[in-house]
Amino acid sequence: MMERIKIRVGVDLGGTKMLIILADEEGRELFQKKFPSRATEGPAVILEHLLICLAELLQEKGLSFREIEGIGLCIAGFYNKKTGMMFSSPNLPGWECFPLEQELKRIFSCPLVVENDANAAAYGEYRLGAGRGRGDMVKITLGTGIGGGLVLGGKLYRGSNGFAGEIGHIPLLPHGPLCGCGRRGCLETLASGTAIAREGKELLRTGRKTLLREMVGAVEELEASHIFKAAGEGDEEAAKIVERAAYFLGLGLAIVTGILNPELIVLGGGVAAFGGENFLQRVRLYLKDSLAAEISSYVSVVAAGLGEKAGALGILALLGDLLAES
Amino acid sequence: MMERIKIRVGVDLGGTKMLIILADEEGRELFQKKFPSRATEGPAVILEHLLICLAELLQEKGLSFREIEGIGLCIAGFYNKKTGMMFSSPNLPGWECFPLEQELKRIFSCPLVVENDANAAAYGEYRLGAGRGRGDMVKITLGTGIGGGLVLGGKLYRGSNGFAGEIGHIPLLPHGPLCGCGRRGCLETLASGTAIAREGKELLRTGRKTLLREMVGAVEELEASHIFKAAGEGDEEAAKIVERAAYFLGLGLAIVTGILNPELIVLGGGVAAFGGENFLQRVRLYLKDSLAAEISSYVSVVAAGLGEKAGALGILALLGDLLAES
Repeated sequence: MMERIKIRVGVDLGGTKMLIILADEEGRELFQKKFPSRATEGPAVILEHLLICLAELLQEKGLSFREIEGIGLCIAGFYNKKTGMMFSSPNLPGWECFPLEQELKRIFSCPLVVENDANAAAYGEYRLGAGRGRGDMVKITLGTGIGGGLVLGGKLYRGSNGFAGEIGHIPLLPHGPLCGCGRRGCLETLASGTAIAREGKELLRTGRKTLLREMVGAVEELEASHIFKAAGEGDEEAAKIVERAAYFLGLGLAIVTGILNPELIVLGGGVAAFGGENFLQRVRLYLKDSLAAEISSYVSVVAAGLGEKAGALGILALLGDLLAES
Repeated sequence: MMERIKIRVGVDLGGTKMLIILADEEGRELFQKKFPSRATEGPAVILEHLLICLAELLQEKGLSFREIEGIGLCIAGFYNKKTGMMFSSPNLPGWECFPLEQELKRIFSCPLVVENDANAAAYGEYRLGAGRGRGDMVKITLGTGIGGGLVLGGKLYRGSNGFAGEIGHIPLLPHGPLCGCGRRGCLETLASGTAIAREGKELLRTGRKTLLREMVGAVEELEASHIFKAAGEGDEEAAKIVERAAYFLGLGLAIVTGILNPELIVLGGGVAAFGGENFLQRVRLYLKDSLAAEISSYVSVVAAGLGEKAGALGILALLGDLLAES
């Protein structure tokens, strides 16, 4: 009789896409597939959608639910690991006080791990990416929003309610732009992809000369990538926007470094990818400028290694830890 | 034959005073005595001074060096626990790159623990003070400067080089007042006792009406305690200074809370004591104002429980942990 193979499932449920990775029982990636996350449709629809997408992927690979050894899910939003409840999600409407762990347990009978996506991504980078073999580490994801995760003393540090690492929502500029969280001047409103795009749109609405005009048909089409591209092509106004984002990000990293004295800060997400090494270099400079040399001279700031798979691979690593324990 | 008693020594070496606590072999406090720290005289003189003070205290209590089971020393400044070196100290001149652990080992042959004073104070509050029985905790000491220590997952978190918790040096106000660390606008320049006194002195130099004029002979005599006293007696200008310090402290705590999601923040030091519950209440308000409710609603901010003994008691607790291990 053939031994039944075991499959581990890692799901990263974000504001726009859902990534599913299937791994073997050593946690090695076998297959991956991306789906739209149907973010606006609320938890009931999204969880059913997840089930359907997973079934589709398993079938495609000649597998079935019976082979699943465990499932890990990471999600964009405030998830309280102690209670298993979603508190809310800035990017997934309708998840306020949703009993996520309980609902997943009703769907799946196998071992289950649920985690905030930024935490999972941090752990992924620590175990398999840019942080492998390193000490205390902070991972920051610069995308639509800004997420953060902390790996301290080799372990994911979640804080008292699972909200640790919310670096996107530290207040940096009182009376600054309004944030999705309801406050003003959070780091996210100053250095995220959304913030950079917002400033690009403001620039387009002025009469100032910029290459951005030729890049998009309508102002609303403008994305952070356009601003980085224009800056790279010598657009001074676009370069100012990038510089400003680098400044605030450096300031944010200086604060994180002052509080945590990490060995390593790993920057991931679209903005870090668009910005590349030049952007990273500016961020490092502003970090060192903003913080006493005694503290700032020890930290390295590097690009993430796992790209958009960090969350799903991280939750698979956490699932692996859980299965190894039991 | 009488069994020889064992004594543990806890020393808190600060910018102005040195506190020595003698404890029994359970770590319970027996005697304490304060000495001037002779801060300006450099490490060689200060360590000799420590030896003499300790000898004096032992003799006073009918004890000798032979009874010492272990010594713990905490010190104001950047101390790297991995290398045993002082990096520098803003409040103790001449300690740059001083091999503190090695020098102490030359003097004392017993087990030895060395720690940054803010770290030791945080651990003291966690084990014996306001943080007893609580989860992730941040202790902030508001004195001449602002120090911080983190107890995460029940353990002192030191960061990669022992500099974690340097909350006094997180940059809050770009182009703000110059800090001892060489940067501008650090929290310490906005909410420490020195900062409050500086603003009081500036107020005295204006023509504005204030009770502070009657409190001191010369401007230079003004201390933070005077400003709190005047504010308490209805002095509007002094109240503004207190309010501003509370605002920046609340902002700093919001940032710490966003990054660490602690269960508890413990405020100690002279400024917290002068300010009392009224000041704490303002700080809590500004914290909640500055941070998303999802994160800020879980943290409590309370007054420290151990007063100026926190550092010495904390280093004794750390020494106790070391002795229990071996």
